[in-house]
Amino acid sequence: MQLTRRQETILEIVKNSGPITGEQIAEKLSLTRATLRPDLAILTMAGLLEARPRVGYFYSGKSPNRVVAEKLHRVLVASIKSVPVVVNEKCSVYDAVVTMFIEDVGTLFVVKEGGLLEGVISRKDLLKTTLGGHDIHKLPVGVIMTRMPNVLCTTPEESVWAAAKKLITHEVDALPVVRKVALPDGGEGLEVIGRLSKTNITRLFVELGEGI
Amino acid sequence: MQLTRRQETILEIVKNSGPITGEQIAEKLSLTRATLRPDLAILTMAGLLEARPRVGYFYSGKSPNRVVAEKLHRVLVASIKSVPVVVNEKCSVYDAVVTMFIEDVGTLFVVKEGGLLEGVISRKDLLKTTLGGHDIHKLPVGVIMTRMPNVLCTTPEESVWAAAKKLITHEVDALPVVRKVALPDGGEGLEVIGRLSKTNITRLFVELGEGI
Repeated sequence: MQLTRRQETILEIVKNSGPITGEQIAEKLSLTRATLRPDLAILTMAGLLEARPRVGYFYSGKSPNRVVAEKLHRVLVASIKSVPVVVNEKCSVYDAVVTMFIEDVGTLFVVKEGGLLEGVISRKDLLKTTLGGHDIHKLPVGVIMTRMPNVLCTTPEESVWAAAKKLITHEVDALPVVRKVALPDGGEGLEVIGRLSKTNITRLFVELGEGI
Repeated sequence: MQLTRRQETILEIVKNSGPITGEQIAEKLSLTRATLRPDLAILTMAGLLEARPRVGYFYSGKSPNRVVAEKLHRVLVASIKSVPVVVNEKCSVYDAVVTMFIEDVGTLFVVKEGGLLEGVISRKDLLKTTLGGHDIHKLPVGVIMTRMPNVLCTTPEESVWAAAKKLITHEVDALPVVRKVALPDGGEGLEVIGRLSKTNITRLFVELGEGI
């Protein structure tokens, strides 16, 4: 939404002097209240200003960027997640690297029976290990992976925005998308049902900007 | 921007029956023209409807999503790019991996004198090489890098959206941000002045959604 210069000026006045009545704003601008009425209506309906009877207009703290922000919060992980690529913790580092290349992913999830999450391995973990002089044909990924409960996860119901914030804050490339399942022993496990990476976020960014 | 139910209805009417005058819309809704005036003003100023004298209102073809799309196109690479991490093409694969870990980046740019772009190496290139049984202490990165002119670039003036589309379309993790420089021999080179990765895009995505 593109504001006119007069609407920007009104926004500034209310930001600095609010709460303020329509008459007072009109006076500051040397205009009549009637002239300002459509502008005030627009700013109020766009959520930039709020009006309270007997008090006047005050700034809602919402910027036009809020429109964009709200849209980004409405997209859910379920709608953009990818298929997870999983290995067993006994899988060798060598086989894990090969799997990564065949599936063309940057992160593998390590699962046990039932697809339950045990750990995560990144390209960075594997690169560090191949450099370390280990016998990567014998070393199992279980030794080098980041292990539960130290694995950051997301769920299908989480907003992509919240998941993206986890990626940035904790400096990881991808999150397993999980759902809670009841275990036969009465406990709870996390079943891996997807993968959310910086590639998914970048693809969403491109899609949201398509068509103009 | 959240539209009211009445504004949504007006939008539907104009989509289906436009161009249509304010009076005709009012008639369809059994309301007065005066009642609709603020709604029509808002829809017009938000760019969802256009008004032409003697013709009436017609649908601009812009959806509310267009507001988001336009915002994404307005952010430029210059405003979010990172510092580039560069090596010389004689640098060994081993030293390149170490540099990648020390600088904590996923992509290195290979430059010659004057910071001129010669090639790019990704974490994936290095992982493949360490697996190949080469002597990575002796193998220079010049042998394994993606070499100019096959390197995809961006510039500070390009929109982040266009750069993100390159990352997705060509399946790369990062682009060198370059500017053209005149060479002493009369030719042109590309000086590396930044780095744009999926991490930058994800961070921007998080920033655009902050504060609500």
